[in-house]
Amino acid sequence: MTPEEFRRHGYQAIDWIADYLARPERYPVLAQVKPGELTDALPAAGPERGEPMDAIMADFERLIVPAVTHWNHPGFMAYFAISASEPGILGELLAAALNLNGMLWKSSPAVTELEQVTLRWLRQWTGLPEDWFGCIYDTASVGSMHAIAAARQAADPQCRTRGASQGLVVYTSEQAHSSIEKGAIAVGIGQDFVRKIPVDAEFRMRPDALAAAIERDLAAGLRPCCVCATVGTTSTTSVDPVPEIADLCQRHGIWLHVDAAYAGSLMVAPEFRWAFAGCDRADSLVTNPHKWFMTPVDCSVFYTRRPDVLRAAFSLIPEYLTTAADPRAVNLMDYGVPLGRRFRALKLWFVMRSFGREGIANLLRGQVQLAQDLAREVDADARFERTAPTPFSVVCLRYKGTDEENRRIQDHVNSTGEIFISGTVLNGRFTLRLAIGNRATKREHVARAWALIREGAERLSEGIPWQSGGLLRL
Amino acid sequence: MTPEEFRRHGYQAIDWIADYLARPERYPVLAQVKPGELTDALPAAGPERGEPMDAIMADFERLIVPAVTHWNHPGFMAYFAISASEPGILGELLAAALNLNGMLWKSSPAVTELEQVTLRWLRQWTGLPEDWFGCIYDTASVGSMHAIAAARQAADPQCRTRGASQGLVVYTSEQAHSSIEKGAIAVGIGQDFVRKIPVDAEFRMRPDALAAAIERDLAAGLRPCCVCATVGTTSTTSVDPVPEIADLCQRHGIWLHVDAAYAGSLMVAPEFRWAFAGCDRADSLVTNPHKWFMTPVDCSVFYTRRPDVLRAAFSLIPEYLTTAADPRAVNLMDYGVPLGRRFRALKLWFVMRSFGREGIANLLRGQVQLAQDLAREVDADARFERTAPTPFSVVCLRYKGTDEENRRIQDHVNSTGEIFISGTVLNGRFTLRLAIGNRATKREHVARAWALIREGAERLSEGIPWQSGGLLRL
Repeated sequence: MTPEEFRRHGYQAIDWIADYLARPERYPVLAQVKPGELTDALPAAGPERGEPMDAIMADFERLIVPAVTHWNHPGFMAYFAISASEPGILGELLAAALNLNGMLWKSSPAVTELEQVTLRWLRQWTGLPEDWFGCIYDTASVGSMHAIAAARQAADPQCRTRGASQGLVVYTSEQAHSSIEKGAIAVGIGQDFVRKIPVDAEFRMRPDALAAAIERDLAAGLRPCCVCATVGTTSTTSVDPVPEIADLCQRHGIWLHVDAAYAGSLMVAPEFRWAFAGCDRADSLVTNPHKWFMTPVDCSVFYTRRPDVLRAAFSLIPEYLTTAADPRAVNLMDYGVPLGRRFRALKLWFVMRSFGREGIANLLRGQVQLAQDLAREVDADARFERTAPTPFSVVCLRYKGTDEENRRIQDHVNSTGEIFISGTVLNGRFTLRLAIGNRATKREHVARAWALIREGAERLSEGIPWQSGGLLRL
Repeated sequence: MTPEEFRRHGYQAIDWIADYLARPERYPVLAQVKPGELTDALPAAGPERGEPMDAIMADFERLIVPAVTHWNHPGFMAYFAISASEPGILGELLAAALNLNGMLWKSSPAVTELEQVTLRWLRQWTGLPEDWFGCIYDTASVGSMHAIAAARQAADPQCRTRGASQGLVVYTSEQAHSSIEKGAIAVGIGQDFVRKIPVDAEFRMRPDALAAAIERDLAAGLRPCCVCATVGTTSTTSVDPVPEIADLCQRHGIWLHVDAAYAGSLMVAPEFRWAFAGCDRADSLVTNPHKWFMTPVDCSVFYTRRPDVLRAAFSLIPEYLTTAADPRAVNLMDYGVPLGRRFRALKLWFVMRSFGREGIANLLRGQVQLAQDLAREVDADARFERTAPTPFSVVCLRYKGTDEENRRIQDHVNSTGEIFISGTVLNGRFTLRLAIGNRATKREHVARAWALIREGAERLSEGIPWQSGGLLRL
């Protein structure tokens, strides 16, 4: 492709994105395709000879986009809503062009140093300890796996050479994300040694139950090595009592990891700092700028106060070499499994500079407000109940009927193509879940979601026979 | 940012990239910064309020780019050279804008299905078995870790619940990439149970030594679980004898993983298929389109013939749910640690369509030819010797002098800012290593590298006092 051709197709892509982001709601939020439909529409074999970019771009619009569930859609309220902001997109574009690999400081100083600089800025914005070490992984799942591996290393320094010894135990709440259990499986601890601690009525880990579990395991000769607390759980965004958990960890010498993948971004707004009390006592913490910090996927931040342990777990450079190295030339490959490391910090830097701390804080405040207002509306409607507190931007609610009726309401909402909500099970009952967090989501979109939920409920009581919509995908 | 502002800054970024890719050699290949220099040039704290994009773009050019080691530079011959092609960049741009997360089929069908389609095309282009399962990870390190975890699962199905049991053994050659050892550490097997099998004179794993190691371990009551063979090792691109290794693995029921991170792309050219003999008998294989397949980082392909084992190792969905699912709606989260999954297949699809199989094969052939021609020139110069065969696009050579003299030659080359070569140690001796593989690298750049190497040698023999260049970073 000549520079002129690249310019032409590049402008074309930029134009498409500008139009798309200006009005993503031109598309249904949920992809209207059946499994295999895109696969069948594409050739069974790749082309022997190159094809013109115009044809590829046309197929992108004609075939790929209809098979997309639009996370940019203002009606996207399923999972945790995310935002691909323009500055983040431009940062990613430039990173793709530079195509750097920051495995070593030497292999591209900008990758390593901008990662360290942006994560220092983020520590300041969020009030996390200045002296923590940070690096960027693709996902919080991978970050948490590294936390558990570091906890394993701290509890059993010989595991690196001799392999994981049996009997190390990981604790997390029954509301924790599945990545904690998966991380424990990956590093060889095993599901039998993951304790899912019961939660209280507000879905927070019970410190008394944690203390009892630790005592039981100690009495049985096991070795508690890691507690994974969550600030902002996936189902309800509940906040585990980190100060009490930190006390227990300190008493027993257990690694404390905090999963703040979703809620962590809120630390930039001081009035939400209450939720992160005790996090400064953690040994590690993950938060995802690609969730609620205007940064395109993937960008998951991993912090630890004990980078030496992470290094001890993963560095394959003999120690005698490290002393000769410049202490300012960090080699990020020493801190985890992935050797390659793309220039993820560039988009984060673009986002942080373009929005500023206050800009991001204000966006998040607005989204929390939308959720709080919806919560009040739910509380005011006697046919519905909230099924969990609403500390941040996620509202859990249910129609005061059967699980089946609530599922039918969810189907009704999702079948419109206007709004996409998810569901979860709390206390054994199916509940609707609206996660507000996309930058494009405004008051009218939340109002529309609530109207559709009520409409679904009205259809139930009117006894209209149910036709699950053709759009339904979740 | 309004759509019009996005258009303006987007065009600006596209223009910058067009100019950059047209002549990356306007910059020195190696960043001319000292450790901490970029850090010190950036503010110690992030901005409280948002800044204009013009200022950010200006700082990108003024501060970030000078701290970049240019992997796009035609003189980049260190590590494995890579190429950010224009179609790949545009694919990544659109993926960043769509900002999809393909954890489930439902969460965006296009992510899952295009990943499956492109990896099917790639199987066809490379001659790998049609029925293999594929998925994309960020790096080969992460892919190989998953292979070792699957091997662990196959050898010890209870490890998922009970944790890694001691005594599982992983075999790889002493020339294998460090990611194999790191993967074994991560999954709890431990370094003491990684056998680094000796290589022959051409740096290929010795099957007799592998057989002996397996027998020794079996006799000691250990359980061989995984052999990691390499097609295209990092130092010399040597090719392990996969057919003989596959025989051994079959005899003993050992998982065979092939690391073809660099060389795997060459399978698209039939005349190089000899190097991949036996790979169709592997249980898993990794190859990196982000290395030698015109795709920007990150995009590492993981194939396995036994996805059921990977699922058994990592899926956290109860089995009774999976039967109800549509078999064409693959949930990629079930096959590994990362839950989130960005739309990496889009850039791969852009690349495959834009170049076609033949286009990529021809590019790679040309680069192999450049290396072969250089190898002949080295052989014709009595002052130098090649230190390893040159099967592909990497040339290992040394001046027939001391290690120190060779390091000084490397310094001389790298201090020019025109060419960036790496070094490695073979048979205990330091050797120069030129990895050709960037799309922009032409005959004149290889000639210049060779001229600089000879110039460096001449300076040695002329006894000119050595001044290590200010540019030197590796």
